[in-house]
Amino acid sequence: MTLSVSPDELFGDGVFETIHLRPAGPFLLPAHLARLAGSAALLDIAVPEITVDAHGSDGAEEALRIICTRRSHRVTVSPIPPETLRERREGVRVVSAGLGFAIGGKPPWSLWGAKTLSYAENFAARRWARARGADDLLWLSTEGYALEAPTASLVWLAGSDLCTVPYAEAQILPGTTAGHLLSLAPSVGLRPCHRMVTIDQLRGADAIWLASALRGLAFVTELDGVPRRRSRWTPILLDLLGY
Amino acid sequence: MTLSVSPDELFGDGVFETIHLRPAGPFLLPAHLARLAGSAALLDIAVPEITVDAHGSDGAEEALRIICTRRSHRVTVSPIPPETLRERREGVRVVSAGLGFAIGGKPPWSLWGAKTLSYAENFAARRWARARGADDLLWLSTEGYALEAPTASLVWLAGSDLCTVPYAEAQILPGTTAGHLLSLAPSVGLRPCHRMVTIDQLRGADAIWLASALRGLAFVTELDGVPRRRSRWTPILLDLLGY
Repeated sequence: MTLSVSPDELFGDGVFETIHLRPAGPFLLPAHLARLAGSAALLDIAVPEITVDAHGSDGAEEALRIICTRRSHRVTVSPIPPETLRERREGVRVVSAGLGFAIGGKPPWSLWGAKTLSYAENFAARRWARARGADDLLWLSTEGYALEAPTASLVWLAGSDLCTVPYAEAQILPGTTAGHLLSLAPSVGLRPCHRMVTIDQLRGADAIWLASALRGLAFVTELDGVPRRRSRWTPILLDLLGY
Repeated sequence: MTLSVSPDELFGDGVFETIHLRPAGPFLLPAHLARLAGSAALLDIAVPEITVDAHGSDGAEEALRIICTRRSHRVTVSPIPPETLRERREGVRVVSAGLGFAIGGKPPWSLWGAKTLSYAENFAARRWARARGADDLLWLSTEGYALEAPTASLVWLAGSDLCTVPYAEAQILPGTTAGHLLSLAPSVGLRPCHRMVTIDQLRGADAIWLASALRGLAFVTELDGVPRRRSRWTPILLDLLGY
């Protein structure tokens, strides 16, 4: 697939959403469109009314992307990489690393609440993790609070509390999949919680996952080189999300 | 001008250089190509041998850009925006604002030494400054050290010392124009210095400029709302650089 763009459009100055396209149609479309509108507002980009063809995936599942630069917008459909499906099925080995910011320390001009096209550092963070034998990276604040992964939200189980990080307090992107999962938690007897967690507290959690649109929920099988026991909740929560 | 790209190429995952194209040819081309190669290495991007047509600008001056994504590379030539020329001629009003990082605090996976295509936050920082009645922004570390502007290096005069910020210590991009200017300083009786400077020390400097390929050297006429006296050095240094 080839797009015609202006050279200006190669500078990451735009916003996007990645959406899980199912046979029944795009999953959580209204939530993704709402986040896209919020991101665009932070960048002063006018997003025209986006029409997403309501048809479902051709196969079992596909990746739907809405990409808005300052000049144009596009909707693409592509296969989900086999590696992403493997991580959903088999889990991920994660290393933690500093993000360089203190809690509340992101500056007023910065775009932390926007899902922007400026993804070079997100890709670099994952390459760095992979060079260290892991699959993904978990960003920490300078104080040691666990925040998010470069392309996923952090979700963990502490007793019967199903938790994620409060995005405004932590100055991270609101997670669409994680938010939906927490809203469904009571239906399986879990209590949804938004709370800050240090990396040391997280190591003691009953289970840890990374939540994102294409992986759905990837169980953390290893954190900083220490293996973690599988959780009976992984298939229950994946089923709850319809993956 | 329209480019054909893959959707992957819209995610800012690449590197670039902006070069001042003069009638005699691209200014400081070897230094820009060396920085491009360094940026590409940090992103694990293989940059093919880049051939820049050695012809000079059609008019007095133009902007030459080398843009390398993970899949392709392109060389574009475009006019220099009138606003950029005005800032070179008339100077810039600057506001200072935190970058959110402490000195030495950028993480090991991050791309601070690379000039990447992920420029959304650089553009956002300038929009933020403009919304506050300034032309540009000067980034500060959490300790209050002045670092760089979103698209320019900081240069200042303290007595007969012509100074810029040491890029490795400050974890900022090495400035091509600023580096060249300092190498020429002795020819006009100034001493080149690389030193850290706090924003309070900087306020006491004899003159402050922002250095970049297209603006050349833009005199700071106002810092955080406080007007600054013109310097007799501005035309001398612009002449030294050939602008």
